[in-house]
Amino acid sequence: MKKKRIGDTQCPIARGLERVGEWWSILILRDALHGYSRFDQFQQSLGIAPNMLTRRLASLVKSGLLERRLYNQRPPRYEYVLTDKGRDFRPVLLALMAWGNRHFTPEGKALLLVDARTGKPADPILTDRLTGRPMTDKDFVLRPGPAAKARIRDRYAVP
Amino acid sequence: MKKKRIGDTQCPIARGLERVGEWWSILILRDALHGYSRFDQFQQSLGIAPNMLTRRLASLVKSGLLERRLYNQRPPRYEYVLTDKGRDFRPVLLALMAWGNRHFTPEGKALLLVDARTGKPADPILTDRLTGRPMTDKDFVLRPGPAAKARIRDRYAVP
Repeated sequence: MKKKRIGDTQCPIARGLERVGEWWSILILRDALHGYSRFDQFQQSLGIAPNMLTRRLASLVKSGLLERRLYNQRPPRYEYVLTDKGRDFRPVLLALMAWGNRHFTPEGKALLLVDARTGKPADPILTDRLTGRPMTDKDFVLRPGPAAKARIRDRYAVP
Repeated sequence: MKKKRIGDTQCPIARGLERVGEWWSILILRDALHGYSRFDQFQQSLGIAPNMLTRRLASLVKSGLLERRLYNQRPPRYEYVLTDKGRDFRPVLLALMAWGNRHFTPEGKALLLVDARTGKPADPILTDRLTGRPMTDKDFVLRPGPAAKARIRDRYAVP
């Protein structure tokens, strides 16, 4: 993977993707948001090779999404706990889950997001916090921000 | 990548990830949502090797997120157009963008989501379509759906 190349961009989507790296990392974040923190829990959940899991955990720690904490002195044992940045990945996962549920579950839904107060299935949509309007429509567009350099300014200029 | 393994799961997040594959694919979807459809446009935007781009486009077509259309007979030229499933990936990208903007733009924001009516920057949050409540709180939880098999039932059972 050409990490350097993607890191050079100003695009916040690419910046975010650079941190989550590949989908093993995204599934580790999913598990961490579910409450898992120990190597064995991740490994059992993901069925991933130990050396690969070690690399992905180290990468998530380096990106500031997980924090490595000693939870046992002898022998030394570490757990991996979400940072604020890592916890804030939750909406991305929920959006991904809703998309997966809508299109790739021909046999029916195996996992639902549920309103804990009522027990009713929820339907996550993106809305604008300021106006409450749903972002499903075309009324929300991408535009260059104050820090945009030429490449982004040209691409997202007002038509 | 262990496609088979991840495809075996019932988790809708993993099912979705299987379709987008790796982050090149996600950036191709970003560009397609921006309006790009031709090989040269993607290549210029991404700076990706042609053979890799060919593979990623073929994979997105196979997953039903892009459709390949002949737009020129002689010589034959194809464009890649979003399907409904592909277009519906937009909320995931916007959630990813918001996350990237919050945490990984120390020099300021280069790209903003803007309300086209007012020109004001929007702040995308996930809400429940049914109740309008924001999903940032802990009141929305994951629970097994009707199609859940033992693995998902055990994992997401009511505590």
